[in-house]
Amino acid sequence: MIQAFDPRTAEPVGEPVAETSDAEVDAIVAAAAAAFPAWSVFGRRAEALEAVADALDARAGELAVIADTETALGGERLAGEVARATGQLRLFAAVLRDGGGASGGRPPGSALPAYLDVVLTPAAGPAPELRRINRPVGPVAVFAASNFPFAFSVAGGDTASALAAGCPVVVKAHEGHPVTSALTAEIIAGALAAAGAPAGTFALVHGVQAGLRLLRHPAVAAAGFTGSTAGGLALARVCAERPVPIPFFGELGSVNPCVVLPGAAFARPAGIATGYVASLTLGTGQFCTNPGLLFIPEDVGLLTAIAEAASGSAGGAMLSGRIFAGYEDAVAEAQAHTGVTELAAGQAGPGPWGATPRVFQTSLKEFAADTAVLARERFGPAGLVITYSSAEELLLVLATLPGNLVGAVHVDPESPEDLDLARLVIAALERVAGRIVCNGWPTGVSVVAAQHHGGPWPATTAPAYTSVGTAAIRRWLVPVSYQDFPPELLPGGLADL
Amino acid sequence: MIQAFDPRTAEPVGEPVAETSDAEVDAIVAAAAAAFPAWSVFGRRAEALEAVADALDARAGELAVIADTETALGGERLAGEVARATGQLRLFAAVLRDGGGASGGRPPGSALPAYLDVVLTPAAGPAPELRRINRPVGPVAVFAASNFPFAFSVAGGDTASALAAGCPVVVKAHEGHPVTSALTAEIIAGALAAAGAPAGTFALVHGVQAGLRLLRHPAVAAAGFTGSTAGGLALARVCAERPVPIPFFGELGSVNPCVVLPGAAFARPAGIATGYVASLTLGTGQFCTNPGLLFIPEDVGLLTAIAEAASGSAGGAMLSGRIFAGYEDAVAEAQAHTGVTELAAGQAGPGPWGATPRVFQTSLKEFAADTAVLARERFGPAGLVITYSSAEELLLVLATLPGNLVGAVHVDPESPEDLDLARLVIAALERVAGRIVCNGWPTGVSVVAAQHHGGPWPATTAPAYTSVGTAAIRRWLVPVSYQDFPPELLPGGLADL
Repeated sequence: MIQAFDPRTAEPVGEPVAETSDAEVDAIVAAAAAAFPAWSVFGRRAEALEAVADALDARAGELAVIADTETALGGERLAGEVARATGQLRLFAAVLRDGGGASGGRPPGSALPAYLDVVLTPAAGPAPELRRINRPVGPVAVFAASNFPFAFSVAGGDTASALAAGCPVVVKAHEGHPVTSALTAEIIAGALAAAGAPAGTFALVHGVQAGLRLLRHPAVAAAGFTGSTAGGLALARVCAERPVPIPFFGELGSVNPCVVLPGAAFARPAGIATGYVASLTLGTGQFCTNPGLLFIPEDVGLLTAIAEAASGSAGGAMLSGRIFAGYEDAVAEAQAHTGVTELAAGQAGPGPWGATPRVFQTSLKEFAADTAVLARERFGPAGLVITYSSAEELLLVLATLPGNLVGAVHVDPESPEDLDLARLVIAALERVAGRIVCNGWPTGVSVVAAQHHGGPWPATTAPAYTSVGTAAIRRWLVPVSYQDFPPELLPGGLADL
Repeated sequence: MIQAFDPRTAEPVGEPVAETSDAEVDAIVAAAAAAFPAWSVFGRRAEALEAVADALDARAGELAVIADTETALGGERLAGEVARATGQLRLFAAVLRDGGGASGGRPPGSALPAYLDVVLTPAAGPAPELRRINRPVGPVAVFAASNFPFAFSVAGGDTASALAAGCPVVVKAHEGHPVTSALTAEIIAGALAAAGAPAGTFALVHGVQAGLRLLRHPAVAAAGFTGSTAGGLALARVCAERPVPIPFFGELGSVNPCVVLPGAAFARPAGIATGYVASLTLGTGQFCTNPGLLFIPEDVGLLTAIAEAASGSAGGAMLSGRIFAGYEDAVAEAQAHTGVTELAAGQAGPGPWGATPRVFQTSLKEFAADTAVLARERFGPAGLVITYSSAEELLLVLATLPGNLVGAVHVDPESPEDLDLARLVIAALERVAGRIVCNGWPTGVSVVAAQHHGGPWPATTAPAYTSVGTAAIRRWLVPVSYQDFPPELLPGGLADL
């Protein structure tokens, strides 16, 4: 049985949920495989996604209340997150209809939407005619995250994008919010059934063993994951070691380097300090986009401003005892490090899993001497400020960072020196991050066409793909080319090119 | 030292070529890494690719003569293959300029070509502005194939597409044609240098150890491979087990199922038989698109026609003693199989590595009982004809096939029964092949925008990608999103959206 705990008290909350048995997993995947042919060509997928969104919205209050007891993320944040999840579902419905805001919604002369990446090569002399189109890959396994019980969980972006692509979805629920997961799944399955989707299009499994059996099932064609680096790499290995390996789209940990240039540090220290601490402590730091590393120039008032802002910051109850223990270990490692000092601590969060925000400080030289340890993710509200005195050395160190989802640069647009250095810093960040923010912070990932929530390994296991935004649908599609086909045998729409 | 052998005599030919030492590999990769920033933004990449094509064309005769001594593929075929390779280079130059024939050469309102996949999301309320663009991934390792000494070797599609993407390339030469490889590399490097490309943009290494060191080098960002399943999977494992794993785009073996429907078998047995045998024996069967499995209806004259065509077919000298030995082993395995009979044999090829074309025969029932063995690739001019009596059973068996690069269906367009069955066969082939040919044969892969030379594992290790055609450039690109950037800090072209 899987038991949720109230993070504010560490006491059991809600009814325990049964783990899914091997036989149940097999039956669920068999149903998904049986649903695949019909769902892959289901003509009202957009309407079905919208029906799911409507059904979730109709019970948003109830969902947020239950999720708050399991995650302590707060009613307002959680209600907003339901809206984010249903917005994602509606966005993918728009992708199916007209591209969802991406440039070039439809190829010229085609009634087929852009996400199908339709290309026609006419016959030319002895060269054949070819028509290429993207097709759904098959049933998809989705591993839910703990820190977003809606937007990256049962009804999250992986589910929305895979369903939109025409793939049945089996979600492995996160152990941290089993009751929220079960209710969400019930609402999704009911709405899909009412919208006419084939039985088996969507299902939920509970438990670590069920997740592994799901991932190893021959009928599962691809997997999506959001979570820790250790967990993600272990599941990636399971996928790679199958008799028939499958793609594993893992969105893992990240330290998200942020660089403050001298002009910006001089021009607006207070704004940078408060913005940094707000981003660092948002959601008790439990975001993969948390600004874990902040590079600032030496000998500026910014360090004092950061210390002040951090001292006044509020902690929170972390999602689980395991996550809290991991945070405490990471904090202890930093406190014990000879090259690191503690700059400031905020107020402890409530209850036994209440985290205290902490900002540590080191020099570029110390950081470079032990990057393997100091660039490690500290999941929670702990930041490391690294002071630099040489732009050349800063650029060299940025180039050695592991892969990240996002980086940021703070620049004074009035300072020619800042702008010149910014170009070099950006060129370095482009190699180690999938998104770069100018004069802002990495937290906050908008669900739009131009989003890239991805990045070099180990931030993701598939750096060419995003898990947020309309391009996320591409993970679940593979191309097929049709050579010299008579129109009557071409799949729907391809004959009209 | 690496010594080539004349496949027609098995005697040494040409000067032995030295294996590249560890220190040399390291220096070559360091030079490639140093060249990357400049090559990634080099403004005349299209002209540089065309200069390489011109330089190779200017020495096409000499290249074909040398390659014929190392591969025995024949002067005419090899001269044609040089033209195919230079055509590929010019096609990627066209991709850089205007999309190279793909639909939607440029996004609306943008001066940037489509392969960069540029998307703009304007700011909306609190949501930021985002501009996403594809960027080259870094230095690329290319592992050359034996069976196409130009089109899939040093100057082949992997090299052309990676250079076009802005990635420096280091090719690991195939041991089968070291002198051809060295001369090709000399011509490419000279043309790139003359075109102003940074030093280190292109290089060649020789030897298995050099290839492994290349693949493990921290500065190598991705790898392309065309060759055997065993070799490809071993190299894929090396990539996956690096401290920082890199994408491995392997195009491996394939048996390419071809299905003849009853109406087609009745209407044109002679044409199908001669077409099949011609495709099976082309290039002594040494193609990854060879029609290894042919499904035909029982009790038709087609079997006799195939036997006649195969009996008159000519063998050839295989590329190497190792490949010839592998072919002989595969033939012996089929001959020893109790469920298989030998339908026909053609004429032996010349010399000690001369292969004899052979067509084997079995029933759908026997095939289904031992698919693991009978669906194995037999690299060379050996085909297995499988007779079916039930369409339902045929469809079930097709669904169990391993992944393939290509499949084919032969249908009588005048027969409603054929057309109905064809739709079901195509639906089955779509799951197990990346390209489907109607009333044609799998050999022959046109280098065009709509090509998909890929397919489910184990035909490729990255089923969403093609190694032939303009979309091959996508393997070497990763997205980066720029959030709330002032125009003066955006990379070239992105500010003008």
